[in-house]
Amino acid sequence: MSQKTTIPKGTRDFGPMEMAKRNYIFNTIKDVYALYGFQQIETPSMETLQTLMGKYGEEGDKLLFKVLNSGDYLSKIPDSELLDRNSLRLAAKLCEKGLRYDLTVPFARYVVMHHDELQFPFKRYQIQPVWRADRPQKGRYREFYQCDADVVGSNSLMNEIELMQIIDTVFTKFGIRVQIKINNRKILSGIAEVIGEDDKLVDITVAIDKLDKIGLDEVNNELRGVGLSEDAIRKLQPFITLSGTNEEKLAVVGNALAGSETGQKGVEETAFILQTLEKIGLRNEIQFDLTLARGLNYYTGAIFEVKALDTPMGSITGGGRYDNLTGIFGMPGLSGVGISFGADRIYDVLNALDLYPKDTISPTKVLFINFGERETMYCLPGVAECRKAGIRAEIYPDAVKMKKQMSYANAKHIPFVALAGENEMQDGKITLKNMETGEQQLLRLGDLATVLAD
Amino acid sequence: MSQKTTIPKGTRDFGPMEMAKRNYIFNTIKDVYALYGFQQIETPSMETLQTLMGKYGEEGDKLLFKVLNSGDYLSKIPDSELLDRNSLRLAAKLCEKGLRYDLTVPFARYVVMHHDELQFPFKRYQIQPVWRADRPQKGRYREFYQCDADVVGSNSLMNEIELMQIIDTVFTKFGIRVQIKINNRKILSGIAEVIGEDDKLVDITVAIDKLDKIGLDEVNNELRGVGLSEDAIRKLQPFITLSGTNEEKLAVVGNALAGSETGQKGVEETAFILQTLEKIGLRNEIQFDLTLARGLNYYTGAIFEVKALDTPMGSITGGGRYDNLTGIFGMPGLSGVGISFGADRIYDVLNALDLYPKDTISPTKVLFINFGERETMYCLPGVAECRKAGIRAEIYPDAVKMKKQMSYANAKHIPFVALAGENEMQDGKITLKNMETGEQQLLRLGDLATVLAD
Repeated sequence: MSQKTTIPKGTRDFGPMEMAKRNYIFNTIKDVYALYGFQQIETPSMETLQTLMGKYGEEGDKLLFKVLNSGDYLSKIPDSELLDRNSLRLAAKLCEKGLRYDLTVPFARYVVMHHDELQFPFKRYQIQPVWRADRPQKGRYREFYQCDADVVGSNSLMNEIELMQIIDTVFTKFGIRVQIKINNRKILSGIAEVIGEDDKLVDITVAIDKLDKIGLDEVNNELRGVGLSEDAIRKLQPFITLSGTNEEKLAVVGNALAGSETGQKGVEETAFILQTLEKIGLRNEIQFDLTLARGLNYYTGAIFEVKALDTPMGSITGGGRYDNLTGIFGMPGLSGVGISFGADRIYDVLNALDLYPKDTISPTKVLFINFGERETMYCLPGVAECRKAGIRAEIYPDAVKMKKQMSYANAKHIPFVALAGENEMQDGKITLKNMETGEQQLLRLGDLATVLAD
Repeated sequence: MSQKTTIPKGTRDFGPMEMAKRNYIFNTIKDVYALYGFQQIETPSMETLQTLMGKYGEEGDKLLFKVLNSGDYLSKIPDSELLDRNSLRLAAKLCEKGLRYDLTVPFARYVVMHHDELQFPFKRYQIQPVWRADRPQKGRYREFYQCDADVVGSNSLMNEIELMQIIDTVFTKFGIRVQIKINNRKILSGIAEVIGEDDKLVDITVAIDKLDKIGLDEVNNELRGVGLSEDAIRKLQPFITLSGTNEEKLAVVGNALAGSETGQKGVEETAFILQTLEKIGLRNEIQFDLTLARGLNYYTGAIFEVKALDTPMGSITGGGRYDNLTGIFGMPGLSGVGISFGADRIYDVLNALDLYPKDTISPTKVLFINFGERETMYCLPGVAECRKAGIRAEIYPDAVKMKKQMSYANAKHIPFVALAGENEMQDGKITLKNMETGEQQLLRLGDLATVLAD
């Protein structure tokens, strides 16, 4: 090859088979979102850097893909600044746009810009790619899809409840058995408040999470290691050794958090969500898990995460409630709650467990063999009738050797092949061959579509 | 607002209503592509600049959105080059990736990279956004979708014929009456050959196109104006005054091109395509049009273009045959033919002619009014049953004033509202209100889903 052809690292091509599987995932999620009254929106791939910068922390700013300004992008930059070679500061002058890093910030920007047209509570879903200049590795890509649903403008816990139902329904449809974990940021705040160690919250949840693996003594040692006082460790004991049903755990946590108003609120919220879901009846298990602590700085109420039970894989869905979604854009007071399905990981789980429905890959149903111009002309009305009946049909475009045409049908997993030679043409017939069984039947050409439609 | 929120110029947000209409367009096109055995692929939004540069002419190179390298992108650029301020040359050092400019070059790159896995003829479709740093104006965006289908690896005219059928089927489904225009690059080459004015081909087709408006004398004057010899103009007369049916026109052109082998080939190809389509029977008119001359440098055989008949709008679909799709990537000998639907223009035509089917916007079917926690709990099984039956259902999350909930239903075009107060709850009933007629009926809660499903 005269020129090496590659794609940027961390990006992927999706062939027909992968697309069919991905569409199955996206369509399943879309259908459930719509069933719950969520409406789809799309935002541009590029946002202004003003919208994107400072929203994902310092590390996030570095991981933004920035788009070089068009035209003479250097004209307004003085020599001194070029020679200064401060790549981050210069980037802000060379570029005024960047690629979307997630769907949440663009959504917040959308809500602010379209506030007057929207009906609140606004239930939106959005399925689009995002880009991150992360170091690519197994399962981590520089371009990947997010599948988000959020409700903004409502503080009701009904939203949390419905999002849990959506998760339950989606994974039931996929046939993936999952465990849904739920926690509440207010409970975590309450714990920090009660033991007086506000800044050690992450260390604490990490340590508690290790109980099963390393035992209580080691957990306490680790807590000492990160600098917790003996008093704090003593007060933490009920949280560390928490066990039993969700109800039992909530009772223990409720008692231990008696001194924290915020903590009590978190317990009440969690109890209400779990009790209501019990009445509704989920098909998957939902577990109150104190060690769940995702995105502490971002979420303010319920937080949730989903794990597949039958194959090892990180979190495949997550979400939670946040206050003040649009505050960063100068519009305070809009609370929201949302979830995000991890399409790439769900793809891997469905593959690992071989759970794709048989009809996910819905190829052409019948290939008409091309023996030449006369035969092709004879077949055309049959081809047209198949398509009119909604049957995916192809006619091989070139009159090449039959063997080549048959191997085309095989490679494309086409289940039927239709042939018309001299004999068939004389009698207005066509031979239909089942590619799996090898069975052949002679049909009237006009009956072909009906037979295939069955 | 503390921070001005905007989106990059030439880009768009799509709200729920626009998304519903766009999905209708994309799904219609997808379904027809699949019916003809085309398979979907997707390629990354970013390609290496090596893949993109030099494929769209000098102007195209400038219109590519280039993505700034991550990390210390300045480190390998010497001071002298920075101070040289050659923005185009420097861009190639600052950036190694760019955003996809069309779907054809990425497709060619895909075919080369995946050659060994593909089954030829390879029939693929691809519906993805592309980006161009064009000056934005009415109907021209910096991010827009292309909807392409191509067959590569087959020289058969059956492919051209099927693509015309696809166009005919798609616009019939949309209810848009169109005229399909067809021409052939070989005929145009033949004309140039016969009159000996190879380099004036564009001027010639432009002039011919004006016949209806300015008359024959003026056309001939214009041809003189661009430097055609009297002999060339004389030889051009049969082409300029061409009229009648497709058959009649082809006969005249065939005679006039008797001296050109290439020209004859073009006439034969066009005749075969048109005759076969006449046997098949298109629902829209297809017209042989000598003035159609799109992308002369690119196409090598049939070329086509589609115009809406009932509203003024430029070309809404186009395409043609090209040789050597993958030659630019060092893999010669692969011929292809393809079409591209202009989704944005089709969107505008459907709006202008008000042709969207009624069920395009398929909103929530029933909103359950929230009178408080007890009433909500009572309603939940009804909500669940609706969703189980595939009926889009919402429960208003907050127990706010009824008026607010009703106006939410109105704004979202929700046709039914379900209410359960004290009386309904005592009797296991629910009141269903038709939002259009105002009609109310009292139902058993358990019957609601069945009634709404009808």
